[in-house]
Amino acid sequence: MGIFDGVKVIDFTHAYAGPFATLNLADFGADVIKIERRDTGDVSRGWGPFKNDYSGYYSSFNRGKRSITLDFRSEEGQKVIFDLVKDADIVCSNFKAGTLDKYGIGYDKMKEIKPDIIYAAISGFGETGVLSSFAAYDNVVQAISGLMDVTGFQSGDPTKIGPAIGDSFTGLLLFMGIATAYYHKLKTGKGQKIDVTMLGSLLMMLDNPIMASSVKEEKVTRIGNMNPHYSPCDIFKVKDGYVTIAVKNQKMWDSFCSIVSDNEILSDKRFETNEERLKNSMVLKEIIDNLLQDKTKEEIEEKLTGAGIPCAPVMNIKEAFDNEQLIERDMIVELADPGTGSIKVVGNPIKLSRDLPVISKPSPLLGHHTDEILKEIGYEKGKISELKEQNII
Amino acid sequence: MGIFDGVKVIDFTHAYAGPFATLNLADFGADVIKIERRDTGDVSRGWGPFKNDYSGYYSSFNRGKRSITLDFRSEEGQKVIFDLVKDADIVCSNFKAGTLDKYGIGYDKMKEIKPDIIYAAISGFGETGVLSSFAAYDNVVQAISGLMDVTGFQSGDPTKIGPAIGDSFTGLLLFMGIATAYYHKLKTGKGQKIDVTMLGSLLMMLDNPIMASSVKEEKVTRIGNMNPHYSPCDIFKVKDGYVTIAVKNQKMWDSFCSIVSDNEILSDKRFETNEERLKNSMVLKEIIDNLLQDKTKEEIEEKLTGAGIPCAPVMNIKEAFDNEQLIERDMIVELADPGTGSIKVVGNPIKLSRDLPVISKPSPLLGHHTDEILKEIGYEKGKISELKEQNII
Repeated sequence: MGIFDGVKVIDFTHAYAGPFATLNLADFGADVIKIERRDTGDVSRGWGPFKNDYSGYYSSFNRGKRSITLDFRSEEGQKVIFDLVKDADIVCSNFKAGTLDKYGIGYDKMKEIKPDIIYAAISGFGETGVLSSFAAYDNVVQAISGLMDVTGFQSGDPTKIGPAIGDSFTGLLLFMGIATAYYHKLKTGKGQKIDVTMLGSLLMMLDNPIMASSVKEEKVTRIGNMNPHYSPCDIFKVKDGYVTIAVKNQKMWDSFCSIVSDNEILSDKRFETNEERLKNSMVLKEIIDNLLQDKTKEEIEEKLTGAGIPCAPVMNIKEAFDNEQLIERDMIVELADPGTGSIKVVGNPIKLSRDLPVISKPSPLLGHHTDEILKEIGYEKGKISELKEQNII
Repeated sequence: MGIFDGVKVIDFTHAYAGPFATLNLADFGADVIKIERRDTGDVSRGWGPFKNDYSGYYSSFNRGKRSITLDFRSEEGQKVIFDLVKDADIVCSNFKAGTLDKYGIGYDKMKEIKPDIIYAAISGFGETGVLSSFAAYDNVVQAISGLMDVTGFQSGDPTKIGPAIGDSFTGLLLFMGIATAYYHKLKTGKGQKIDVTMLGSLLMMLDNPIMASSVKEEKVTRIGNMNPHYSPCDIFKVKDGYVTIAVKNQKMWDSFCSIVSDNEILSDKRFETNEERLKNSMVLKEIIDNLLQDKTKEEIEEKLTGAGIPCAPVMNIKEAFDNEQLIERDMIVELADPGTGSIKVVGNPIKLSRDLPVISKPSPLLGHHTDEILKEIGYEKGKISELKEQNII
């Protein structure tokens, strides 16, 4: 039993941000009915990497959902949409603002059909404002939000976050909006529209640099792997890779020195206080790199964490897989997928003591549940065949 | 009126991740009562940048909350906590797993006092598993989750995301857990415990690289500002800064060439197909850097977006402030703060058509609401004075 058991979601989303939101609804038990284009389906079905000629990308973002193929641009297809919505609680989309309105199936129409519907939309810039008509992409929002400018090294270029965080962060915020609005619906009987943007979401992640920029005179920009408040805090190249170390106060600094340097840096005037260390952090980094170059990640981690200093090896993705803690907490889940054969996906990190999120069903083949879904809303065999002949479903 | 109007939250959180979760509850109308240590308060009150000798850091993460000072390590202080919890709906904390249990005010005790309480906890690694007893920090979880290894340039070091995303992402997930569990409570009358971790949250953001690593033979690691699926997609140095450009298909490639190069790269065999371009993306980047070096961000953006090619200038934080779209959508809010004087904070990006999040109240001075809050739960003047004399509040 999931918390959203019995909640029906009509899901027009595609690619990353939207499917990432509805994946959370599915993890918590909602029945997510994915509306896919006939022939091609969700555009991400064409995105690699592939396994057995099937998109791993699609498989990982659509676990636990059902798929119906449907041409919602046709009038007949729209009738089917309306029949589905009559019986649904939530509609999700992540088209450019206004796209579903253009086809006559936007919020206003959905509300006519189902007055208490919750209509949840992700777009790049929102349904209002000067940029509302533009499409957005992860690279664009990472650039104009300021996020790239505060990531990377001072001497180097602005740097994109590896994964498409403009999508994942926004997807989560849509799920937050849905959970909040759904609570409100249970309390008041009223539905509403949720309008979440990629640009606004990334800005939320930048609350700290934005505050700093509002408070300080100096320009706020990237400072590599360092920390603006204390030093040393950085990654250091060691014998077999990199370690991250954060020396957060004077007591930690004393321990750190006694562990790594026979105290020679402890007596160096340039590093006497946190303020001095921040000022001379580049020189200090070089010295520490030298001190640690012959040691292994494991040695350093053991000694420093033993002394209460935050320290860890920098791991690659394969190593993260093997982290015992993540395995114990069901954060890596292997699914028997009808397309890729088998695939490892990330578990849901929201661990509730009742009704844990359940990740057991794989992603659907294109249109796999078309007949089943239509029968559930009372369509008879003949009607379904007819729609197929007309290329509506 | 906010959606969580009338919902009372007893908030033990401090620093970033926890306060970021409860800030969202406050934005949506909840009464967030922040329990702060006597004398020092939330540790972040000591963190810069400062304005008028007051922490901008604290101000930005604690808007809209009320503050009560209270020594919850003392028996008398715990009695006050229990009186507060009797009247509350949600308890939040982000101590190391087990800390509140150690003081006898963990979930089990809270449940005795208020059987349907929702108890929401953030920790580094969780309440279970081999690492549960360790504290975590943003730099540590960015390192061991694999996130740093997939961010930055191939020829350079692993790179930390500028803002402390291990905190913000986890804070959002806790809010998601709370909204979900609170919906469940309204439906069933039952409370529960929520256990969200920094490590698990960052892993969720890495779903795409983890899937890729499960599907592909090759090692998944950082590729700078490029995209693994199409090329050119990168940032380019131009006359007055940088622009990001994503050429996502062959049609866009044709337009791109005709706009920037008099078609000389269009006929170059090395760039004929997306596959070839991906293979030769380093050379291609150099050529494009050269082609664009004398042009301005504005010129390039105008021409490329006009042709439907995703393109934008890389902006710094100050420039992001001035983005008209963000201002129109209330994403930059100026608050009259009792400490800093005035401060700009990021608005809430979850725009609901009913009950928009409201950001109007600033962060509280330390203990500003102590008397008010205690009077609300029936404490009389004499009792309050007594607690003050005993240094409990």
